[in-house]
Amino acid sequence: KRNGYPEVIYGAGKTADQIIGIIGSLKRHAENILCTRVSPQKYAVIRVAEPTAHYDELAQCVTLMLKPVEQTKHYIAVVTAGTSDMAVAEEAAVTAEVYGNQVKRIYDVGVAGIHRLFEHLDEIREAQVVIVVAGMEGALASVVGGLIEKPLIAVPTSIGYGTNFGGLTALMTMLNSCASGITVVNVDNGFGAGYSASIINHLSETEDDK
Amino acid sequence: KRNGYPEVIYGAGKTADQIIGIIGSLKRHAENILCTRVSPQKYAVIRVAEPTAHYDELAQCVTLMLKPVEQTKHYIAVVTAGTSDMAVAEEAAVTAEVYGNQVKRIYDVGVAGIHRLFEHLDEIREAQVVIVVAGMEGALASVVGGLIEKPLIAVPTSIGYGTNFGGLTALMTMLNSCASGITVVNVDNGFGAGYSASIINHLSETEDDK
Amino acid sequence: KRNGYPEVIYGAGKTADQIIGIIGSLKRHAENILCTRVSPQKYAVIRVAEPTAHYDELAQCVTLMLKPVEQTKHYIAVVTAGTSDMAVAEEAAVTAEVYGNQVKRIYDVGVAGIHRLFEHLDEIREAQVVIVVAGMEGALASVVGGLIEKPLIAVPTSIGYGTNFGGLTALMTMLNSCASGITVVNVDNGFGAGYSASIINHLSETEDDK
Amino acid sequence: KRNGYPEVIYGAGKTADQIIGIIGSLKRHAENILCTRVSPQKYAVIRVAEPTAHYDELAQCVTLMLKPVEQTKHYIAVVTAGTSDMAVAEEAAVTAEVYGNQVKRIYDVGVAGIHRLFEHLDEIREAQVVIVVAGMEGALASVVGGLIEKPLIAVPTSIGYGTNFGGLTALMTMLNSCASGITVVNVDNGFGAGYSASIINHLSETEDDK
Amino acid sequence: KRNGYPEVIYGAGKTADQIIGIIGSLKRHAENILCTRVSPQKYAVIRVAEPTAHYDELAQCVTLMLKPVEQTKHYIAVVTAGTSDMAVAEEAAVTAEVYGNQVKRIYDVGVAGIHRLFEHLDEIREAQVVIVVAGMEGALASVVGGLIEKPLIAVPTSIGYGTNFGGLTALMTMLNSCASGITVVNVDNGFGAGYSASIINHLSETEDDK
Amino acid sequence: KRNGYPEVIYGAGKTADQIIGIIGSLKRHAENILCTRVSPQKYAVIRVAEPTAHYDELAQCVTLMLKPVEQTKHYIAVVTAGTSDMAVAEEAAVTAEVYGNQVKRIYDVGVAGIHRLFEHLDEIREAQVVIVVAGMEGALASVVGGLIEKPLIAVPTSIGYGTNFGGLTALMTMLNSCASGITVVNVDNGFGAGYSASIINHLSETEDDK
Amino acid sequence: KRNGYPEVIYGAGKTADQIIGIIGSLKRHAENILCTRVSPQKYAVIRVAEPTAHYDELAQCVTLMLKPVEQTKHYIAVVTAGTSDMAVAEEAAVTAEVYGNQVKRIYDVGVAGIHRLFEHLDEIREAQVVIVVAGMEGALASVVGGLIEKPLIAVPTSIGYGTNFGGLTALMTMLNSCASGITVVNVDNGFGAGYSASIINHLSETEDDK
Amino acid sequence: KRNGYPEVIYGAGKTADQIIGIIGSLKRHAENILCTRVSPQKYAVIRVAEPTAHYDELAQCVTLMLKPVEQTKHYIAVVTAGTSDMAVAEEAAVTAEVYGNQVKRIYDVGVAGIHRLFEHLDEIREAQVVIVVAGMEGALASVVGGLIEKPLIAVPTSIGYGTNFGGLTALMTMLNSCASGITVVNVDNGFGAGYSASIINHLSETEDDK
Ligand SMILES: Nc1ncnc2c1ncn2[C@@H]1O[C@H](COP(=O)(O)O)[C@@H](O)[C@H]1O
Ligand SMILES: Nc1ncnc2c1ncn2[C@@H]1O[C@H](COP(=O)(O)O)[C@@H](O)[C@H]1O
Ligand SMILES: Nc1ncnc2c1ncn2[C@@H]1O[C@H](COP(=O)(O)O)[C@@H](O)[C@H]1O
Ligand SMILES: Nc1ncnc2c1ncn2[C@@H]1O[C@H](COP(=O)(O)O)[C@@H](O)[C@H]1O
Ligand SMILES: [Mg+2]
Ligand SMILES: [Mg+2]
Ligand SMILES: [Mg+2]
Ligand SMILES: [Mg+2]
Ligand SMILES: [Mg+2]
Ligand SMILES: [Mg+2]
Ligand SMILES: [Mg+2]
Ligand SMILES: [Mg+2]
Repeated sequence: KRNGYPEVIYGAGKTADQIIGIIGSLKRHAENILCTRVSPQKYAVIRVAEPTAHYDELAQCVTLMLKPVEQTKHYIAVVTAGTSDMAVAEEAAVTAEVYGNQVKRIYDVGVAGIHRLFEHLDEIREAQVVIVVAGMEGALASVVGGLIEKPLIAVPTSIGYGTNFGGLTALMTMLNSCASGITVVNVDNGFGAGYSASIINHLSETEDDK
Repeated sequence: KRNGYPEVIYGAGKTADQIIGIIGSLKRHAENILCTRVSPQKYAVIRVAEPTAHYDELAQCVTLMLKPVEQTKHYIAVVTAGTSDMAVAEEAAVTAEVYGNQVKRIYDVGVAGIHRLFEHLDEIREAQVVIVVAGMEGALASVVGGLIEKPLIAVPTSIGYGTNFGGLTALMTMLNSCASGITVVNVDNGFGAGYSASIINHLSETEDDK
Repeated sequence: KRNGYPEVIYGAGKTADQIIGIIGSLKRHAENILCTRVSPQKYAVIRVAEPTAHYDELAQCVTLMLKPVEQTKHYIAVVTAGTSDMAVAEEAAVTAEVYGNQVKRIYDVGVAGIHRLFEHLDEIREAQVVIVVAGMEGALASVVGGLIEKPLIAVPTSIGYGTNFGGLTALMTMLNSCASGITVVNVDNGFGAGYSASIINHLSETEDDK
Repeated sequence: KRNGYPEVIYGAGKTADQIIGIIGSLKRHAENILCTRVSPQKYAVIRVAEPTAHYDELAQCVTLMLKPVEQTKHYIAVVTAGTSDMAVAEEAAVTAEVYGNQVKRIYDVGVAGIHRLFEHLDEIREAQVVIVVAGMEGALASVVGGLIEKPLIAVPTSIGYGTNFGGLTALMTMLNSCASGITVVNVDNGFGAGYSASIINHLSETEDDK
Repeated sequence: KRNGYPEVIYGAGKTADQIIGIIGSLKRHAENILCTRVSPQKYAVIRVAEPTAHYDELAQCVTLMLKPVEQTKHYIAVVTAGTSDMAVAEEAAVTAEVYGNQVKRIYDVGVAGIHRLFEHLDEIREAQVVIVVAGMEGALASVVGGLIEKPLIAVPTSIGYGTNFGGLTALMTMLNSCASGITVVNVDNGFGAGYSASIINHLSETEDDK
Repeated sequence: KRNGYPEVIYGAGKTADQIIGIIGSLKRHAENILCTRVSPQKYAVIRVAEPTAHYDELAQCVTLMLKPVEQTKHYIAVVTAGTSDMAVAEEAAVTAEVYGNQVKRIYDVGVAGIHRLFEHLDEIREAQVVIVVAGMEGALASVVGGLIEKPLIAVPTSIGYGTNFGGLTALMTMLNSCASGITVVNVDNGFGAGYSASIINHLSETEDDK
Repeated sequence: KRNGYPEVIYGAGKTADQIIGIIGSLKRHAENILCTRVSPQKYAVIRVAEPTAHYDELAQCVTLMLKPVEQTKHYIAVVTAGTSDMAVAEEAAVTAEVYGNQVKRIYDVGVAGIHRLFEHLDEIREAQVVIVVAGMEGALASVVGGLIEKPLIAVPTSIGYGTNFGGLTALMTMLNSCASGITVVNVDNGFGAGYSASIINHLSETEDDK
Repeated sequence: KRNGYPEVIYGAGKTADQIIGIIGSLKRHAENILCTRVSPQKYAVIRVAEPTAHYDELAQCVTLMLKPVEQTKHYIAVVTAGTSDMAVAEEAAVTAEVYGNQVKRIYDVGVAGIHRLFEHLDEIREAQVVIVVAGMEGALASVVGGLIEKPLIAVPTSIGYGTNFGGLTALMTMLNSCASGITVVNVDNGFGAGYSASIINHLSETEDDK
């Protein structure tokens, strides 16, 4: 892997033992490792076998960084509507970080109290890529999209109840946004947003190297 | 009908001749009349029989006001996201007007250019009731709802394409709004919003009379 | 907060410890507090830290009223179809009460035994705002809406089975009602209905004060 | 066919010529004939070949009764919510009549003006079977179902707009009704309701014969 | 209640204590009682308070028959596609029985082994009303409907997986059946089918009495 | 193309001129040609350019067979529920034929008159592959599937109304069938069924050659 | 059963005791037995009664083969996109094997790393029938379908999250595939795919026997 | 507008006269103009008023470029699955071009004939951003996504029939892709994809300028 980019394990469908096995074989190739969707219960088993692995409980991510990763000059902003969206946001942020990106977290700036968003607007505008994470009706993506001219990746979350339909409402909001420059990933797909943001952020970094 | 409130005819499922018949019999009781969902084609027939009836082409409403209606002191604000939402907004505005309400129209202030909304914020805040009409992703309802403390009736419109699903996306956005104080009517139901806003607006008018 | 209106915490996505923390900091500003969606299990933890907080098990609400709230002269009627709808109705009623509204509860008057509704019709008609809470097919909203001329906020509940789809059927019934003057909130959103009803009820109260 | 019961042709997917052909061959067996879903355009062609065939434009039914059908002593009540539901109601009524049933039509008694329903309640209660035809939110089925103790067949119609979804809302309302004794047929399936009501009505007729 | 027809309690949303309370007060009026959707756990509590109540574990019904109910001369056939549909079928059968109907159970005759259905065809044809209970794709209703000329009430069950969608597939199959004379109730609504079948069966019984 | 198998053009999204162009260039390679989804209007244009092309109006297929195709010894049975399903069935049959398969058409044997199916059962059982084409509720696939032990390809059609949802009901019925040995293609995809049936039929033909 | 084909028990809706009972009575007729959807918990009970029964934990299948089954000359390829799809794939493979088919398993060759698929392409192409098992977006079926000319049975799995909707996305992908020769079974229906593949594979085997 | 970026008009909901009016007033500010979703009928009217405007019939776009736009060094690849997806692809390509991006079109390389994709793989890999446009099952996005390490914007199209549901199937496929680095826009939203791709492409261009 160029630049120490990690191998990624999707932990959701795997037992702790399966994850330990995969980590073990990747370590033999001296790869950096990101394992997403690891519950605290699974981590309790993994840590016995891999005591140096780092665990981020909110993001539900295990990381094992054996090689240094070159850092980007530009940063990715990760913005959330509410505090309940933080778990998905952290999956995105941790993913971006293990790929060497600088990340700024700007949380709990949803449209119900829109003044908070405006307080952070400059910070959001100066990012190279913006990830907006929102559940409920997901309107924050449209509002931020109307205020910036950078790539915006919208992540609907499954936070909500009733006709929220497990995040479908926020997803549809984001796909139908009247603001331009918004692309969308699957419900709760923090990893996908962090990974895509990283690829975009590296485009210009690479240019600078030349 | 107390205060000259009009009888309402839902024109969508009726022929021009059926509408002419109903208007004729209501006129005999000297009722004011509002007929919604009248296409220009139907109106062309109706105007022959009822040359004094007024037709509003954008709202698709025929009105025939034979008796004066008492005017409210407070006004209802009708706010739209885009210009395409104006037809539904006018159905709401015309409805509110024939029930004696003052109406302020504040159109095309959607979140893709949110500064336009802020220019009109005081006018919106001073209304007694606010109707927000929006298609696409319908995010405007949440943004306005977070900025005011008056009753807000949200009307999703069927404007959009792809996964908009004929207004379902805007409807779901509005029902799941993280802002409080928002209630919702059916897709494109300008009449329902105007009627409910009128009932609310008259609550305080009546009080003042005492 | 004007008039001692409470700060609201949405308890569903928060741990008991997080709620205790928020209550603590709000108390320092001497705010009244309403915390919705608090399970008995969470309350058991909260009561240790906040023994003076009141808990309403049916409404699943914790309240902590440190300042008096001015009472309205008009009342809000909260009407339910069945006994299973009472939990949502109580969330609405408790919300309305902590905002200073008088509330009349009229429960279990669904259309399967419609004579019970007619026995309470005068009480419903004299309310300033009516909240109708119904699951199953939600037909009660249409029936009440056809009998009154006051603002009616309909709350679909997730009570039912089979093709009820977690309240979607009652929601669709209410949005498509052939009676006028009905607006709708999300499935099980008692808080939203109580809050919107309170704003409407206060419109005329404020007038009277002048 | 016992008792002169007609052969039924479903006209929707057939050309006028195909229908003429089928009628011709059925006539050779001296069968009574009911052909549903015949548009005025198709009938204009059919009448040239079959000038004695009767056409009911509202019901969109062609009938050709060559043999007498024994009449029932009890009647079927066909009840509609609105005038737009009449086409479906007539399909049901005409179907019931060609099978020899007495039919009483009680139209436009929807819940938005529920007093009209109560005026006809005795007539509905005395029917042997009741067919309730309703679009929009379909609440009329629940209200009638709560007031009678006879078999009630509910027919949702595709009348409505927005989230009505072509009759799905009324269908779901009827399936989830909190009143007992209601069974349901497909959206706009007047024929199915009329046919099932006829079978039920004949059960007791047959008994009397013995 | 005429003829000793039972009062019905819907047990699903109620605690054992609430059910005991309702049974107690109904007993004071010497009513017969049917309580549906009672889990074995709830019954274990109820039996302590009401040791003479009968419990049918498959049907999940508690019955307490204090007065005799007149028996019908005709019977209702309850037909199932598979053994997994038996719980819903028993709810229908027990309901029909407590209303005094004779019931014949014809189980496990689904279309995958259609010869078994034909073995029981005479028994099904001689019933006054037929209830068909089927999950999966629900095709049995169409097949039986094509073979008989009696009222058929179809009950979709939630048995299945994948795109079965909790019974929606069977429901849609039954509503769209190409056989005539079929009406439908909600998914898993054995009670509703048993109740409606009973009303129909009593129509002819009553005639005979006169 | 081995054995003279035709090149296939999907005509639905193409203009007559585009189709003429593709036919022209394929003819230069002396390929046999099957063009599906060709409306009579398009064919009227194509026939001018390609007067030797054969058009099947019911199947909506244009064929141009320049080379002989070897015939299979076994046949494919194409079975339909109603006459309205014939257009889709013919697309399947014509497709199978241009690939060299013998085809037996067994039409209008739906479950509403199941005796007709049994009259043709031997013919169906002796086929090497069976295609069942059905709209409405699609139950015929289950019934045939329970009676044969050959591969059965089920084709749902969009014939129906109300909750048929453009063929979705028949599709779901077929996917959830309780009979084994059934696989399914997209709604109205006669081509896909005919093509898959042909591949299967040729498996054994090839064997015999060895 | 010809050739020792097993009797199949669908274990999902049955208790361990019911399964033991059915196995017992089938053994008396010396039938081979396949019981699908048996959880390890149920097997723990069954093994006490039937210690010679074989259990495959990944496939969740119990088999009891008392008679030899003739082996096919051709093999069925079972191909999966990811490791999480293996449980469904094994249900298909075990089913095919108990019906006497040779099976080749080619697992974890999804489109995210498409080179792995190409490494196994010859093995897939030489199979008589190919089963493709895939969750997430299910694209593997289209890719394999475009590369082979044998019957392909696609099995969507419920692996995924967010808008995967329990396998619906993969199912729709497979039904709408632009590659020809693909037929589809229900979500997670490994048994159905294995059974249909077996019928197809035996068509040519049978030919050889003659 | 920095760099001569055009003002964009969404032509779908506007009359030709409204579009002419907007173009007129933008021209006064010497803005470049892109007007999307303009049918040939509308363009016939617009060209009279604006004879120098350019019309692209496939893309349905009107452009009026009064000022030069700086060209990018890197290119955007626009890739389609089939020829029917070209209209949406051209909307994306034209949008990208009027924003100054170089564009390479690589059309008709869908997975049914995957060798064509591999022929163009180098060209796709060397793009700075890749737009994949696909209808039917949309599998091409996953396949390309697995082969490149650049940002990929997937555009589902409404091409298909049956259970395609107007592009929903392709959308869901793309959102659930097992390949990383894919973000998605609304069905048929070529403009949105072209615009987002342009923002991303300009990120690195801007860097180079420094
Ligand atoms: N039961 C409820 N349903 C919907 N929204 C609620 C509910 N309870 C509180 N809220 C809203 O949630 C906000 C507080 O959210 P939070 O800051 O996450 O605690 C309040 O201001 C209300 O607008
Ligand atoms: N309007 C209708 N809706 C549903 N089914 C109908 C209707 N009219 C007739 N049918 C049924 O269609 C059958 C005739 O179908 P066909 O042989 O295609 O004309 C009749 O026996 C009825 O069962
Ligand atoms: N009626 C049809 N339904 C689905 N797919 C079809 C149909 N007719 C042809 N096809 C497929 O479409 C391909 C040709 O597509 P095209 O290159 O767009 O003409 C053929 O190879 C078939 O796989
Ligand atoms: N084809 C399209 N699809 C989606 N959005 C578009 C399209 N064309 C233009 N837009 C957006 O519509 C805006 C102009 O909308 P309007 O002011 O209503 O003309 C542009 O700034 C774009 O953001
Ligand atoms: Mg933007
Ligand atoms: Mg507000
Ligand atoms: Mg009212
Ligand atoms: Mg009743
Ligand atoms: Mg029948
Ligand atoms: Mg079979
Ligand atoms: Mg193929
Ligand atoms: Mg990639």
